[in-house]
Amino acid sequence: MVSTSALPVAVLGSTGYTGMELLRLLLKHPYAALSYVGGRSHVGESLGTVHPQLGPEAGLRIDEIDPDKIAANARAVFCALPHAASMDIVKALRERRLTVFDLSADFRLRDHTTYEQWYGPHTASALLKEAVYGLPELFRHALTQTDLIAVPGCYPTATILALAPLLKAGLIDSSHVIVDAKSGVSGAGRTPTAATHYPDVAEGIRSYKVGGHHRHLPEILQTLNTLSATPVAVTFTPHLVPMTRGMLVTAYAKAITPGLTAQACRQAAREFYVNAPFIRVLPEDQNPDTLWIRGTNHTLLSYTLDPHSGWIIIQSALDNLVKGASGQAIQCMNIRFGWPETASLEATAIFP
Amino acid sequence: MVSTSALPVAVLGSTGYTGMELLRLLLKHPYAALSYVGGRSHVGESLGTVHPQLGPEAGLRIDEIDPDKIAANARAVFCALPHAASMDIVKALRERRLTVFDLSADFRLRDHTTYEQWYGPHTASALLKEAVYGLPELFRHALTQTDLIAVPGCYPTATILALAPLLKAGLIDSSHVIVDAKSGVSGAGRTPTAATHYPDVAEGIRSYKVGGHHRHLPEILQTLNTLSATPVAVTFTPHLVPMTRGMLVTAYAKAITPGLTAQACRQAAREFYVNAPFIRVLPEDQNPDTLWIRGTNHTLLSYTLDPHSGWIIIQSALDNLVKGASGQAIQCMNIRFGWPETASLEATAIFP
Amino acid sequence: MVSTSALPVAVLGSTGYTGMELLRLLLKHPYAALSYVGGRSHVGESLGTVHPQLGPEAGLRIDEIDPDKIAANARAVFCALPHAASMDIVKALRERRLTVFDLSADFRLRDHTTYEQWYGPHTASALLKEAVYGLPELFRHALTQTDLIAVPGCYPTATILALAPLLKAGLIDSSHVIVDAKSGVSGAGRTPTAATHYPDVAEGIRSYKVGGHHRHLPEILQTLNTLSATPVAVTFTPHLVPMTRGMLVTAYAKAITPGLTAQACRQAAREFYVNAPFIRVLPEDQNPDTLWIRGTNHTLLSYTLDPHSGWIIIQSALDNLVKGASGQAIQCMNIRFGWPETASLEATAIFP
Amino acid sequence: MVSTSALPVAVLGSTGYTGMELLRLLLKHPYAALSYVGGRSHVGESLGTVHPQLGPEAGLRIDEIDPDKIAANARAVFCALPHAASMDIVKALRERRLTVFDLSADFRLRDHTTYEQWYGPHTASALLKEAVYGLPELFRHALTQTDLIAVPGCYPTATILALAPLLKAGLIDSSHVIVDAKSGVSGAGRTPTAATHYPDVAEGIRSYKVGGHHRHLPEILQTLNTLSATPVAVTFTPHLVPMTRGMLVTAYAKAITPGLTAQACRQAAREFYVNAPFIRVLPEDQNPDTLWIRGTNHTLLSYTLDPHSGWIIIQSALDNLVKGASGQAIQCMNIRFGWPETASLEATAIFP
Repeated sequence: MVSTSALPVAVLGSTGYTGMELLRLLLKHPYAALSYVGGRSHVGESLGTVHPQLGPEAGLRIDEIDPDKIAANARAVFCALPHAASMDIVKALRERRLTVFDLSADFRLRDHTTYEQWYGPHTASALLKEAVYGLPELFRHALTQTDLIAVPGCYPTATILALAPLLKAGLIDSSHVIVDAKSGVSGAGRTPTAATHYPDVAEGIRSYKVGGHHRHLPEILQTLNTLSATPVAVTFTPHLVPMTRGMLVTAYAKAITPGLTAQACRQAAREFYVNAPFIRVLPEDQNPDTLWIRGTNHTLLSYTLDPHSGWIIIQSALDNLVKGASGQAIQCMNIRFGWPETASLEATAIFP
Repeated sequence: MVSTSALPVAVLGSTGYTGMELLRLLLKHPYAALSYVGGRSHVGESLGTVHPQLGPEAGLRIDEIDPDKIAANARAVFCALPHAASMDIVKALRERRLTVFDLSADFRLRDHTTYEQWYGPHTASALLKEAVYGLPELFRHALTQTDLIAVPGCYPTATILALAPLLKAGLIDSSHVIVDAKSGVSGAGRTPTAATHYPDVAEGIRSYKVGGHHRHLPEILQTLNTLSATPVAVTFTPHLVPMTRGMLVTAYAKAITPGLTAQACRQAAREFYVNAPFIRVLPEDQNPDTLWIRGTNHTLLSYTLDPHSGWIIIQSALDNLVKGASGQAIQCMNIRFGWPETASLEATAIFP
Repeated sequence: MVSTSALPVAVLGSTGYTGMELLRLLLKHPYAALSYVGGRSHVGESLGTVHPQLGPEAGLRIDEIDPDKIAANARAVFCALPHAASMDIVKALRERRLTVFDLSADFRLRDHTTYEQWYGPHTASALLKEAVYGLPELFRHALTQTDLIAVPGCYPTATILALAPLLKAGLIDSSHVIVDAKSGVSGAGRTPTAATHYPDVAEGIRSYKVGGHHRHLPEILQTLNTLSATPVAVTFTPHLVPMTRGMLVTAYAKAITPGLTAQACRQAAREFYVNAPFIRVLPEDQNPDTLWIRGTNHTLLSYTLDPHSGWIIIQSALDNLVKGASGQAIQCMNIRFGWPETASLEATAIFP
Repeated sequence: MVSTSALPVAVLGSTGYTGMELLRLLLKHPYAALSYVGGRSHVGESLGTVHPQLGPEAGLRIDEIDPDKIAANARAVFCALPHAASMDIVKALRERRLTVFDLSADFRLRDHTTYEQWYGPHTASALLKEAVYGLPELFRHALTQTDLIAVPGCYPTATILALAPLLKAGLIDSSHVIVDAKSGVSGAGRTPTAATHYPDVAEGIRSYKVGGHHRHLPEILQTLNTLSATPVAVTFTPHLVPMTRGMLVTAYAKAITPGLTAQACRQAAREFYVNAPFIRVLPEDQNPDTLWIRGTNHTLLSYTLDPHSGWIIIQSALDNLVKGASGQAIQCMNIRFGWPETASLEATAIFP
């Protein structure tokens, strides 16, 4: 039952971590009301049964992913389905004029041949031109003008937010950027695999997809290239860290001219993010700890000069399930519908 | 009581992690016999009481750190004391003609002004010239000729072993090397601090000493510069990872000439380490996981090309308490005394 | 700066975990406004500097623990100081007619000789008679009538809430109750110790204070004996589990008469807690996971019969820093001042 | 290639944790030589490829599970297959007169109707009468006389070893024994499931199979009843703890007569285990930490009296993959073939 004043919204795909996190944030949203939950499993069961952490008050039942039923019950839809599974349902929802926030990769790349090279066939590529990349700090205005928002995940969000101010200001050599990224295990999703099995992942660290093979690299380059006057080349190495939530990006870039200071980088970032409520540029000599933003939509940024090598060390930290997924989607919704950008995203970090 | 055939050895500083790990390895050594344990606390107590994991069979009692008593009971000494605390006792032991394996930083830097710049006053700098850097893969022969061995720790060992073959072969640009290092918490030692308090460190990741401020950087540069024809500059960023043991270094270097392949790097490493029993160069498409070498003296190396950026990603993984400390010290002893290099270091990894 | 309508409240002791958690909850409280933070360290520094997780918007500075200054700035005080350190400042605050929520053990025991036997001298024992034990589910009415509330910690809260309904209803043999409790590491506080040092605590489990030596046992017995018609004897064994937050109590009791069912126990609990918004009695065949209530003020309860032995297994799970400390203190404040009991405590669990 | 003097042994099922641990221990065994590895997956691949932690020197290839091929290559077989999958292959191996150490549940229960009640149909029940329960501390002599050894797992081993001395000596009331067991995640095996998915298991604790539903309870009772003069009833509650290895059992029992001391319990245990090299009874005021025996075949025991309640708290700690599985199987082999009981099991704990 939806209050008359709140916007009725649907979540599709409620059993993955991003779907669960959407539920958590929407159940307390002041302007949106969760009115429909669609899933491919547990249909007919109540949210409180499927997700004991939500408690029995989460009384909604999981329903089918049926575009007509969704359209009858919601005005906006969060689609938290895997890539490829998302595109057709998004198309059907857009045909029914719903506003869609898609958390999959299906509408993030502008060029469908790039998509198909990394992910496989695209069956709704006509929609790509209307999709806006859901990174509010870069595309806030465009988000108010669209009904299809492709919300980026944790690696692109953390990487782009760290590098954007320096590339935009032309402070660093765009052709030799190193990104060493460290992700918590929930970033791999909720499907149990050998790589996420507790004994095989706890107490160790390892990289994966080394050498430019991660599928999120193309959207990182697509976005950074819109900011940089010169082509961007990123050497991107993701790592899997034994922690549930959190992402830390440590990036390395060379000053375009000698004499660049960390202070100048911080200044560029503060200016670039002057209106961004979730970005915090840390002071000199402070570098981010992912525990400081756990459970929040914040991104922490730091800039440090290595005086011996002349390289700049750029760091960003975020919660991969909030700013790196569901919180960012809510932030996009808040902007799209003209609500305060921080609505339902005001939580203070759970520390420790 | 020492067997007549085994070499009597002492361990000084038994309550830290490196001291404990020395005890673990020495208690089962076929050619050395633990004959003396000196400490600054728990004097008079039995090892089995102080270290329940050793069991009651570890019957030795902790004794004072008294050079004369040590000299009366041992021929070789492992000094696992903090830096600065080590130098005077090492001097006293050398005056008594004992062979010393020092695990502190006190004798690793050849230049005492560099030492004093990073650590403070050096009261035994006359010994620096006889000290050999205890990295057997680089200085195997020199280790057989000395009685003062300065055993390097985890960051230098992991970094140097990863980069040495490429710098020696002149394959990479020595002036722009990035080292992003990830350490388990035991690398911080056994003294409880805010940074190692479980709730403040578990489930998060963070860097520290960003911008070239880590004290182990000088010895990394000192060693790499002996191998490289051109000066080496390293941007070194250590990170603290929520795991007890293990170190992963992910380094980034640019090919000195276009067309360098990962295979050529692997080949250079295999040749460089042809006689090194603890180095394993991983095959194509495999990158190291610290769990694969936990509890062992092995170092795993991998080399990957990023074809888009042309940079080489170089990785090394080791157990910071074994190859990054105590195991390496034992390896040095094995070489110094002409025993099989792997004696007491044959363990298979504890996985998971 | 305090809004005119909100109650100005102080927190004393802001650098421990319970102090930090109080700050987190009070900064978003709709009826109370954090107006004073007193500490024994970091005096003069801003909260945002001392606690990066709070962000720069936490603009208050840490001030001295000065009763007059506190009284000039606050109407209610949360005292999150260690036991013994608390009693004198509480006395001074009560003399200034402030309402005090004390999170230490200093005012939990009614009998000062029992206190002195377990903790040492008590210098404010005259106040013991006015103190109310801050467990709202048992003493909701009394909390509205007092200005000194002794908020219990995690072990008593989890144990008492689990057992109270069955003892009150006379369903179990009060003379043979086993309580096997498992605590996260943050329950040990924020002072680094050998027992909370990451490598010594991660990946292992152990008990401590076995055999009835834990100091929280007397308040457990004091409270349970007020409910039970027959004397209560509890065999209490605390364990330290490698996790930051969370407490799970698994208790064992024998039915007073044959034929007791789990359903009857659940029914007794549901009736006992009929007006308790933070208690959730789980359905048959569901037992609590501490992850389901992380970051919340909820307690989950389950009751299971072992048909072979005839014993009842009673479980409770809570977040030791929220319901087991600071959230409970806020709940007490809400009741004391006639606000909705759940104010500022509505968060959904952070899962995973 | 098997040395002529070493006994050729096979391992069936090498990709699970118990299979992997058997490989680790057998590759260094002084009297047995790993001559055959049979699996249901990875057939034809080398051990070093499938298990990077073993290193390339583990040159054997995984072969089919073919009884004739196994019999042609081995004299003894470790069967580390799941229950039900084990029984037929064990039967075939026994028909070929091989000595079999079965790590599944298939031959642990003497009564096939009990087996079928808990596990399903048994197709080789004729073999049950020749099987010996592979708990050397209780059945050392019988193990020398059989060729079919049913090796118990972690819960029965930890529970039985803790309680056996007191039940045998008639010191405790056998009709009301509480066993609260805490297991590391590797005890659940290597198949990824929702319950072992890192984010769902890390940082939390929970029970499972509460109320006497765990399948290992019947073998616990079967074994304890052979020792006790009166029938044994155990209330058994297993818990899943966020750690990879380790098991801690905290058991509670009532003295059969008033005045029983912990010292008398320790004495009974020391006498009961006088010839047991892997059992260590801890001194007064020391309780076991699972970290103290990680990677070893040891079991630590402690006995504590709660003077208020009169109950005895009995604790045992072991490594679930070593003494709770593969190490115990090796121990059984050592006994069966008349080798030193500790052969290949001498490792000191990996601490931390």
